[in-house]
Amino acid sequence: MRFGVNYTPAVGWFHSWLDFSASDTARDLEAIASLGADHVRIFPIWPVVQPNRTLIRASALRDVATVVDIAGSFGLDVNVDALQGHLSSFDFVPSWLDSWHRRNMFTDPDVVASTAAYVEALAGAVADKPNLLGISIGNEVNQFAHAPHPAPHDTTAEQGHAWAGAMVAAARRGLGSRAVGLEARHGSADSVPSAAGSRRPAAGSRSGPLVTVAQYDAAWYDDAQPFGPEHAADHGDATVTHSWVFNGTAALHGPLGAGSVRHGEYLLQLAAAWNREPGRPNWLQEVGAPTNVVPPSDAAAFTEQTVRHVAGAQDVLGVTWWCSHDVSRSLADFPELEYDLGLFTNDGALKPAGEAFAALARSGITSAVEPPSTALVLDDVLGDGSPRYGTRADCAPGGRFAAAWLALAESSHDGRGPQVVLRSRLADEALRTARGITSIVEVPTDLDGTALSVAHPATMP
Amino acid sequence: MRFGVNYTPAVGWFHSWLDFSASDTARDLEAIASLGADHVRIFPIWPVVQPNRTLIRASALRDVATVVDIAGSFGLDVNVDALQGHLSSFDFVPSWLDSWHRRNMFTDPDVVASTAAYVEALAGAVADKPNLLGISIGNEVNQFAHAPHPAPHDTTAEQGHAWAGAMVAAARRGLGSRAVGLEARHGSADSVPSAAGSRRPAAGSRSGPLVTVAQYDAAWYDDAQPFGPEHAADHGDATVTHSWVFNGTAALHGPLGAGSVRHGEYLLQLAAAWNREPGRPNWLQEVGAPTNVVPPSDAAAFTEQTVRHVAGAQDVLGVTWWCSHDVSRSLADFPELEYDLGLFTNDGALKPAGEAFAALARSGITSAVEPPSTALVLDDVLGDGSPRYGTRADCAPGGRFAAAWLALAESSHDGRGPQVVLRSRLADEALRTARGITSIVEVPTDLDGTALSVAHPATMP
Repeated sequence: MRFGVNYTPAVGWFHSWLDFSASDTARDLEAIASLGADHVRIFPIWPVVQPNRTLIRASALRDVATVVDIAGSFGLDVNVDALQGHLSSFDFVPSWLDSWHRRNMFTDPDVVASTAAYVEALAGAVADKPNLLGISIGNEVNQFAHAPHPAPHDTTAEQGHAWAGAMVAAARRGLGSRAVGLEARHGSADSVPSAAGSRRPAAGSRSGPLVTVAQYDAAWYDDAQPFGPEHAADHGDATVTHSWVFNGTAALHGPLGAGSVRHGEYLLQLAAAWNREPGRPNWLQEVGAPTNVVPPSDAAAFTEQTVRHVAGAQDVLGVTWWCSHDVSRSLADFPELEYDLGLFTNDGALKPAGEAFAALARSGITSAVEPPSTALVLDDVLGDGSPRYGTRADCAPGGRFAAAWLALAESSHDGRGPQVVLRSRLADEALRTARGITSIVEVPTDLDGTALSVAHPATMP
Repeated sequence: MRFGVNYTPAVGWFHSWLDFSASDTARDLEAIASLGADHVRIFPIWPVVQPNRTLIRASALRDVATVVDIAGSFGLDVNVDALQGHLSSFDFVPSWLDSWHRRNMFTDPDVVASTAAYVEALAGAVADKPNLLGISIGNEVNQFAHAPHPAPHDTTAEQGHAWAGAMVAAARRGLGSRAVGLEARHGSADSVPSAAGSRRPAAGSRSGPLVTVAQYDAAWYDDAQPFGPEHAADHGDATVTHSWVFNGTAALHGPLGAGSVRHGEYLLQLAAAWNREPGRPNWLQEVGAPTNVVPPSDAAAFTEQTVRHVAGAQDVLGVTWWCSHDVSRSLADFPELEYDLGLFTNDGALKPAGEAFAALARSGITSAVEPPSTALVLDDVLGDGSPRYGTRADCAPGGRFAAAWLALAESSHDGRGPQVVLRSRLADEALRTARGITSIVEVPTDLDGTALSVAHPATMP
């Protein structure tokens, strides 16, 4: 199981791309490496790299490549996210998608082609780096399919698949031959499927950079969000989840309640349920301890318990903490919680959560090889097999499926939460066998639940 | 009368601020100086300089100062526009005004304070440059008070005055002692008025950098636009107009029709009518020959005739042509006409309009010292003295006032269009005397007209 950190530059936050400093970057990455982390995730700002639809700035790509090299000098692998897009409540949308030029960024052919060109160019700029962990298409780009983002909101799930497929293909074109290894090994909508049913020996190992699609949790919890679980599970080389307990979870369970410290584990099991191929790696790419629902005094315990529960899931590629450095109070307008998510203070002092993270990273903790044998059935279809609207609300904080999963997890003999199996795939014995599922549990019929809002209310200013 | 050019960088358009090159800038400015121009107007990109509300990038300010120095080395003065904002159909709005952070940029106290801080810092960064012509608050910022810009559209005229006053004051703070001279000489809402009625000896001369508020022509032509003539005339040290005949004028009159080649002159006379102090300079800060309504074969004639008519107006500070260089066809999504507005091609060849401009600039042509003695009355108030909705529509292309003004201009003995006097100020004899108005003409009662749209339809993609 890999340990990493989402890298938030101490000086100038992500605006530092406008004044790129190799020495500032090196100081930050040296600190991150000192935690025992093995990778970072980095975030170029989309309109800075591609200010015009047909202008991809070579110097910006060089800066990204330089960061990857600096990280490598400290023994860190790097995941590069392309489309930011959205970061910590701020949107960075190119002017060619705004006002007079407002178009659906997921469906307009010119926009999709040029966005793909950017993803390809970015992947190509770092393709030869030995320490490239992977390319994510962008950070929670599915936010742009919803208000309050001013883009048109008429994207369908099918269009979302076409878009995600195009972006993953673009990233792979950029990576060239280095992308091939994983394509052959992990089936996805974007590549030739490998033999079904074969379990992958070790989720963390890999033969080339991963291409992934990162979404915020409305994909899992909000039936109205056009990008759903399939968009995470059907594209790229691993299924990505982002765990933020300000989504109602911590309000429901308390900062250190089982539902809160198991939220990352739970998302990983949800992800695994939607994967079409057993053994596809799942990546908890973002998880953090937001101060609006987790008091600073609980942050270290929250961190430790979260990671230990994550390690109880199978096929965990890794966990990537959000984030490295607190945001400077000299920068305005961040939601309060966003200032304090760092493992380090803004001036570089290690915080208690950072100490907890470092202890775990250095402990040699690994994720489980054998999956939990029990699986809870998720009703993703109606009796006639058609898709069921409401499946995602059931999974959301406060939803009946979420409650049933948590109850099972807390009563398990080994402390590990159960796997999840979709009703639509329940009859697939080969799949169940390949996933190591020997016991099927139904959500109790008398269990009720009401999903809480998952639209990140806490990140609204 | 000053001759200048709006500077559109040949390499990378305004995105070149992200990759600032002193040598590219020098090559472009040397070419502009070769036309005989005495000044340029330059356009930093707002979110590039101020990516966070409380982060004003020192290096970006240094780049702006460097451009001013390079221009000086070629004998060019420089006007620096602060809030871009809007340029050639593209909006550049900081992320702290978008999506979760959407606020009214003209009224939110935090936003106004931070915007003022930027204007002050920018003015301060160039305050000591001997060749600083002035600071404009921003390019056509009033566009943001209207759709399709996503900002809230509930700004009132009064709030617009408060905003403009705050921005002009901020620019003057940045300019420090160099701003004082003009403040003492030209009354405005933002400074102590000088003795009313005194004519200024020469509009083009100046004792310090000008502070101006630049608006697109909806301010003059669209009664629904919150920013109106008073916002241009009551703030700063000169009244700025932007003349674009794609606003319906050329459609009505033809590319070389009198209404088209007199459109710049007409706007200058409208501006003078709203000035509270006689002799306040008026600046035709943008005028160009858009190919969608002026064929390239007419561009030189359009340029020459426009400038000659402008010179027939009184108190003309100058004319600043849009623009220096064609936009590279390698950049996407510009409205077609925006690619071809340069006096030079993108690779630096002088175009016929450039030759015409250069001949005029070198000819020593001056604007009239004595104002036209005839003035046409503009009904800005109703019989009871209250403001009249419809005044601006009357002035718009196709409006009855515009038609009457043009008829008078074409029948004048000296070829100069008449002045304009507001009904609300008609009884002010001292003002009329100071303006040199000896003959009052009313719009014929039997004249009818229908205003055309002025919302820049041609710049919509």
